[in-house]
Amino acid sequence: MKLSTIRNVCGSLRSPLVRQGGGVSCLSRRCPPVSPANRRLIIRTASATTSGGTNPRVAVKFGKQPQKDDGFEFNTSLREVVQSTKEALVALQRKNPAIQPLLVIIQIVEEVLKLNEDPRVHGVYLHLPPACLTSRVLNTLKPEKDVDGISDLNMGRLVRGDLSKGFVPPLASAVLDLLEKHDAPLEGKTVFLAGGEGPLGVALQCLIERNRMVAFKSHWSSNSLQRQVMQADAVVLLGPGNMDVPSTWVRPGAVVIRCEPTLETDEHVIEISSKSGLGFLTAAYRTRNVVHSCSRWIQEQQYRPWHLRSLKLQPLTPVPSDIEISRAQTPKPVDQLAEEIGLLPEELEAYGRSKAKVQLSLLDRLHTQPDGKLVLVAGITPTPLGEGKSTVTIGLVQALSAHLKLNSFACLRQPSQGPTFGVKGGAAGGGYAQVIPMEEFNLHLTGDIHAITAANNLVAAAIDARMLHEATQSDKRLGINKIDPASLTPQEVSTFVRLDLDPSKITWQRVLDTNDRFLRKITVGQASTEKGQIRETGFDIAVASEIMAILALADSLEDMKNRLARMVVGTSRSGQPVTAEDLGVSGALAVLMKDAIKPTLMQTLECLSMLGPFANIAHGNSSVLADKLALKLVGRDGFVVTEAGFGADIGMEKFFNIKCRASGLRPNVVSAGAPLPREYIDENLSLVAGGCHSNLRKQIQIADVFGVPVVVALNVFKTDTQAEIDLVCQLAKECGASDAVPCHHWAQGGRGSIELAQAVNEAASRPSNFQFLYNKEMPIVEKIRTIAQRVYGADDIELSPEARAKIDYYNQQGYGSLPICMAKTHLSLSHMPDKKGAPTGFVLPIRDVRASIGAGFIYPLVGTMSTMPGLPTRPCFYDIDLDPVTEEITGLF
Amino acid sequence: MKLSTIRNVCGSLRSPLVRQGGGVSCLSRRCPPVSPANRRLIIRTASATTSGGTNPRVAVKFGKQPQKDDGFEFNTSLREVVQSTKEALVALQRKNPAIQPLLVIIQIVEEVLKLNEDPRVHGVYLHLPPACLTSRVLNTLKPEKDVDGISDLNMGRLVRGDLSKGFVPPLASAVLDLLEKHDAPLEGKTVFLAGGEGPLGVALQCLIERNRMVAFKSHWSSNSLQRQVMQADAVVLLGPGNMDVPSTWVRPGAVVIRCEPTLETDEHVIEISSKSGLGFLTAAYRTRNVVHSCSRWIQEQQYRPWHLRSLKLQPLTPVPSDIEISRAQTPKPVDQLAEEIGLLPEELEAYGRSKAKVQLSLLDRLHTQPDGKLVLVAGITPTPLGEGKSTVTIGLVQALSAHLKLNSFACLRQPSQGPTFGVKGGAAGGGYAQVIPMEEFNLHLTGDIHAITAANNLVAAAIDARMLHEATQSDKRLGINKIDPASLTPQEVSTFVRLDLDPSKITWQRVLDTNDRFLRKITVGQASTEKGQIRETGFDIAVASEIMAILALADSLEDMKNRLARMVVGTSRSGQPVTAEDLGVSGALAVLMKDAIKPTLMQTLECLSMLGPFANIAHGNSSVLADKLALKLVGRDGFVVTEAGFGADIGMEKFFNIKCRASGLRPNVVSAGAPLPREYIDENLSLVAGGCHSNLRKQIQIADVFGVPVVVALNVFKTDTQAEIDLVCQLAKECGASDAVPCHHWAQGGRGSIELAQAVNEAASRPSNFQFLYNKEMPIVEKIRTIAQRVYGADDIELSPEARAKIDYYNQQGYGSLPICMAKTHLSLSHMPDKKGAPTGFVLPIRDVRASIGAGFIYPLVGTMSTMPGLPTRPCFYDIDLDPVTEEITGLF
Repeated sequence: MKLSTIRNVCGSLRSPLVRQGGGVSCLSRRCPPVSPANRRLIIRTASATTSGGTNPRVAVKFGKQPQKDDGFEFNTSLREVVQSTKEALVALQRKNPAIQPLLVIIQIVEEVLKLNEDPRVHGVYLHLPPACLTSRVLNTLKPEKDVDGISDLNMGRLVRGDLSKGFVPPLASAVLDLLEKHDAPLEGKTVFLAGGEGPLGVALQCLIERNRMVAFKSHWSSNSLQRQVMQADAVVLLGPGNMDVPSTWVRPGAVVIRCEPTLETDEHVIEISSKSGLGFLTAAYRTRNVVHSCSRWIQEQQYRPWHLRSLKLQPLTPVPSDIEISRAQTPKPVDQLAEEIGLLPEELEAYGRSKAKVQLSLLDRLHTQPDGKLVLVAGITPTPLGEGKSTVTIGLVQALSAHLKLNSFACLRQPSQGPTFGVKGGAAGGGYAQVIPMEEFNLHLTGDIHAITAANNLVAAAIDARMLHEATQSDKRLGINKIDPASLTPQEVSTFVRLDLDPSKITWQRVLDTNDRFLRKITVGQASTEKGQIRETGFDIAVASEIMAILALADSLEDMKNRLARMVVGTSRSGQPVTAEDLGVSGALAVLMKDAIKPTLMQTLECLSMLGPFANIAHGNSSVLADKLALKLVGRDGFVVTEAGFGADIGMEKFFNIKCRASGLRPNVVSAGAPLPREYIDENLSLVAGGCHSNLRKQIQIADVFGVPVVVALNVFKTDTQAEIDLVCQLAKECGASDAVPCHHWAQGGRGSIELAQAVNEAASRPSNFQFLYNKEMPIVEKIRTIAQRVYGADDIELSPEARAKIDYYNQQGYGSLPICMAKTHLSLSHMPDKKGAPTGFVLPIRDVRASIGAGFIYPLVGTMSTMPGLPTRPCFYDIDLDPVTEEITGLF
Repeated sequence: MKLSTIRNVCGSLRSPLVRQGGGVSCLSRRCPPVSPANRRLIIRTASATTSGGTNPRVAVKFGKQPQKDDGFEFNTSLREVVQSTKEALVALQRKNPAIQPLLVIIQIVEEVLKLNEDPRVHGVYLHLPPACLTSRVLNTLKPEKDVDGISDLNMGRLVRGDLSKGFVPPLASAVLDLLEKHDAPLEGKTVFLAGGEGPLGVALQCLIERNRMVAFKSHWSSNSLQRQVMQADAVVLLGPGNMDVPSTWVRPGAVVIRCEPTLETDEHVIEISSKSGLGFLTAAYRTRNVVHSCSRWIQEQQYRPWHLRSLKLQPLTPVPSDIEISRAQTPKPVDQLAEEIGLLPEELEAYGRSKAKVQLSLLDRLHTQPDGKLVLVAGITPTPLGEGKSTVTIGLVQALSAHLKLNSFACLRQPSQGPTFGVKGGAAGGGYAQVIPMEEFNLHLTGDIHAITAANNLVAAAIDARMLHEATQSDKRLGINKIDPASLTPQEVSTFVRLDLDPSKITWQRVLDTNDRFLRKITVGQASTEKGQIRETGFDIAVASEIMAILALADSLEDMKNRLARMVVGTSRSGQPVTAEDLGVSGALAVLMKDAIKPTLMQTLECLSMLGPFANIAHGNSSVLADKLALKLVGRDGFVVTEAGFGADIGMEKFFNIKCRASGLRPNVVSAGAPLPREYIDENLSLVAGGCHSNLRKQIQIADVFGVPVVVALNVFKTDTQAEIDLVCQLAKECGASDAVPCHHWAQGGRGSIELAQAVNEAASRPSNFQFLYNKEMPIVEKIRTIAQRVYGADDIELSPEARAKIDYYNQQGYGSLPICMAKTHLSLSHMPDKKGAPTGFVLPIRDVRASIGAGFIYPLVGTMSTMPGLPTRPCFYDIDLDPVTEEITGLF
């Protein structure tokens, strides 16, 4: 016998005694009598404690227990009972050594809470004595599982006559059924309910009246009972009571229905008077409710039409600052927003009140649902005015959603904190086309970029620590034993435990989400503890990490994990690529990134947005998963507007050749956001004829190469004249755009971009002839040349010897069929930032070629690209402040 | 006249026409007739668009609009109506230039949602025609504001007879009141309800029956109407209907009450038949409900007793891994947990399902509430076995809460990711005393440490960028113009814009939350873009940042902001301290940290925990705000158990002298967690008499110095014998401990530490004589000497010349009265890690002295302390993995 069992029993007895001042045993306090069938649902087994804890002193120290009610008699009684129980237990166990007394504690509320969350359970029948059906118990049960229809909410629904959501109590359905069978048509008949004071009586009366009968109710004790029985066409006897009326009282032809709740049997759930079979009928109606509940659950799992109520905008003139506009609009609670667009509560993980992660399981739930239409917002080569792609994206979605009433989502890229505190301005759009609350969007959001920083730098720390340990320890001390070491030869052991990384060929950089230019090139390992293993390396901005690119391209958790494992961090001295998997770190990376992969749901000033991680310095697009989730959610006729960084030569080309290839996504329309291009206007209004080699024209032509219709969205500024606007729109159409329209979303919100929304809607209804620019099996050099010539307008490319050597190496390693991700300045279509418009007659120099094997692309370097921005002389952070009382932020753009 | 107005009107008309195929105007579709009084509540003004958008092409382009129903007639009609409306508008405006037609759109559901969230509103009366009271409208209203008692939930409550939460419909109360006035006592009387089929009739009938009258209901069309009226003691006429019965039908002495809802007036809210005055009475009962609702709201704001239902534990033998134990227990949804301990929904910001931030406004709401008792868990000098302070803290709280049923909170320190992936093991406790889900605790949590990293490194980037810009630009180009530059002399300008930081005296380091030893000492600025401004610096682990210390010591948002501004980052060439405020970055830092300051609510395997940010490398304590919030929440008789890092010489001394001084907190008990101290046992069992200079004894004595009772918590291991346990407990008491008890929480959860909980509860009831070790006005050197002698047992201290110079400088700068935060090894009471037990006869060398002015302490350096840990040869991350299908994490301890 284990002494621990004593403690279990004593321990369980103890607390209620102490807390209630004695007398009430645990069993009678907490649990009603239960049938064996019921126990399966609601029992918990008291703990079988560990052997480590078996010591008898607990019982000895027992006298210390009652701190509050410590009258002497009480203590004495307690000690006596414990002592005699202990003795009885010892005696019992001596005779029956195989038996251990076991106490079971039943906690109804806890059990109900669990059943509420269990998706396999569609109905819960609280088969308990009325005294146990307290308000708390009843209303803990989710109304959608309350198949007996006894919760307050379901009772209210029944009273008001709304049966679309609740349940009719099965007993009431059964009674009505019997009434109908006996004496249809029911209309005008008189039913007398004896003893119908409780909720069941009310429910029954409502049903009877809804069937246009007349119901009378009376207490069993009423002295007009006989008269009322005699007047009725039907008599329903509700318990508890003497539960019968003399047959002489009953009018000839009238029916008497007895509803007598007694102890249950295993056969059916409510005992019946054997004549009427009411119990069986009730059980059948309960089962019908369960089936009904299950159907509703299945219905819930289906795609549901949106009932999104857009927020109303009241734009002011002049347009206030972005943070003032954001603050003036009250965002909808994110759980409400989610409900309006058909997300299930369990698919949402709230982060505060206005942000939530969306579970990837949505893709499984809606896998048969047709996708909506995908619109890509690209831009022209950026100008100092800013081409406002995020603003176009948001304005277009506000117009589609709040004004054309088409389901739509903006898929945006998460912002880096570096620019937020540096120079750029927010990434939340601007003016009356913004994501709100913009400060939450622009600050930590849901921590995805922080997770990237953590994961990226764990790889970096692992690399340097590994090199240090390999350099300073013998093989034997490395202690890595992933597989059976006995089976390996000494050389294999060395190969296995030593990565033998070449310090001069580490390509992995550390990252920070701060514009910290002094970290561009650094020397690490200078402390004496690192034993002279110094080397040069550097930091990039966090969004330049390969992990960011992977997050944006992965289409499942598994895909992300595999890509993380494949990341190449450097080369061994023998020339072999070394991966994150080789470092043993890829599982930890997947753990760090498991939440970051889920897209984030936020809202704009009028409607919705879905935020994916993005990868600006790599392929510059928001995440595949954000697009995919959004496409399912909007439904067949809906729109997902996603953005690509910089001009069509940068973000759009990569969207098509890398993101579409990886994901299978196919865009229906490209919307090119652009301010009025000055050079274009000047050129034409002054009739400098012939040369229409403008940037906009070229960007439209690039989109044409991929066979996707283009709608030009002209961001109108106050100073633009109507003639200018008309001219540009006309010329854009002549260059091949499906349509070109002016937009006013910055000043007016969605209403200002209704025309754009209409044009996009129209273009999306046309067939799209999407095609890749190149076949991925083409040689690397040919792929680069194709992009340079057909997208940038170069005459040819010129490879440095270094670039040529790398390409050979990648071909050897089997990376030759990866797509190309050009690292080129975004300030010109060429490699020369000062060549505006659409330069021609140049040869594109390829300085070097690198590879992101995990993300899955080769990236040629064209000229110098900074992967770590700096702070300007007067950074944004000077103006940013927090009111510590109101918690209001000022100066954030 | 502004043309934009045309667009407003057209725009508003447009969408419903398009979507519904015409015919239904916006007004009639969306809004019911409203009284002027009502409009105040539920109107929205249509937007007055900006001047930037006033162009007439919108109307011209109108024909493009109908995409879906674009039959020719429809288009034609639309164009005609728009055209003629435009003309009418122009004509109207020509005659009445001052008037602009304005459309108002009313959206009931939106308005109700806003009112739901408005804490100033205690009741909402949906005074709308029955057709507008749809299920959606009715049930959008929060039941606690539904003073008319018409929502489904309130109706259900009334039917079931639970009036503690809902509201009785005012009209029903009024009718009952009239019945009572007319003919009390009511019992046994007969009331006839004519036309009482709706919810109001049901409510009235329930109330009548609950007052032991008999109620009959009938349709107005019933052919037994006359008979039923004649039988009744009272007749209630419910509308709509012909609303009267011939007086000849009414039994003599019977009362007739007419409930006739008609159009409202401004005088009262329901029109009444002038005879009965029922409308006024109804309005009075509604007002009573509002007052009632307001009282309930006030009640909600008060401190509420907990009704925490602890999770049940079933410990297994042998004890599984921490992650397996964590996963086996299903955590309660955090919102439910919050409700159980009396947090208001608006005080909680959920982060997923099991974590939430708690708003600091809680402190205001409960400011009159007495604090609970504060227990500090300290430890002995750490041993290789681990002294398990977090585990003691959690085990103690599980025992107090789940077993002694005393409200209690564990205030824990947030873990750093560095050790999680490095060497240490989780910080979530261990075995059956853990915070769950442990993987969420150990990974990103709510991103607080990421926020610290971001803020710390923004300061660093600002420092280097500032030095670069000052070195490479003239004063004029700096462009900083915080105040009117015209008023400054040239010298003042220079002083103002130039901080003139001395690169060799920058004390600010960068941080990462990664164990990256290669960053301990680095050279930055080596890229050519930094123009040769290279310097040596280094990275610390993120939790060593001064910002972490500030976060842990701040007692409000304002205090945090002020401390951030005061942080000294280096010295100018002229010897002046340069602060974060001087860099212009402190507002941005406050913005970055505004959420991190809020403590996080999680749960343990059985009960509750509150996580504050912590500052291990600084003062090693969890946050002041977490303690303060928890002390309010547990209430007068509750317990808050907070932990301090390392031994009593480190964490506890700083808890008393720094944290208690800053916060005003006073602990009631110290619980010293300790494994069985081997040296102690050996010493005594082998009767090496006299020398009881053990570490445990010394640690107890240190606590004694501060006048706080000590309870020793002995973490029992399987191998410990009873004789050993008894001996240590006895000796601990002889050394001055109030009590000493063995603990089994690791193997058994809270049940294994009931004795400890009882001992702590007993000790807390005794008076505590807390005193500081030193007066803060004492000279810096004397403060250091006092700690060295009275806490560490040193003979004296020895200052290096550098330390002496720094102390002089700090005195000059006015920092002399700051408390002292010793940076000493935690592996010995002395400065020599290998001197175990309680060393004596040594002189403590003070190598250097530094200052965290923002955090508010001076920190002398004793020997070498690493502020950036490294990865071991076989880091934890090797074993960590994620199943991409189940999302289950393995290998996380």
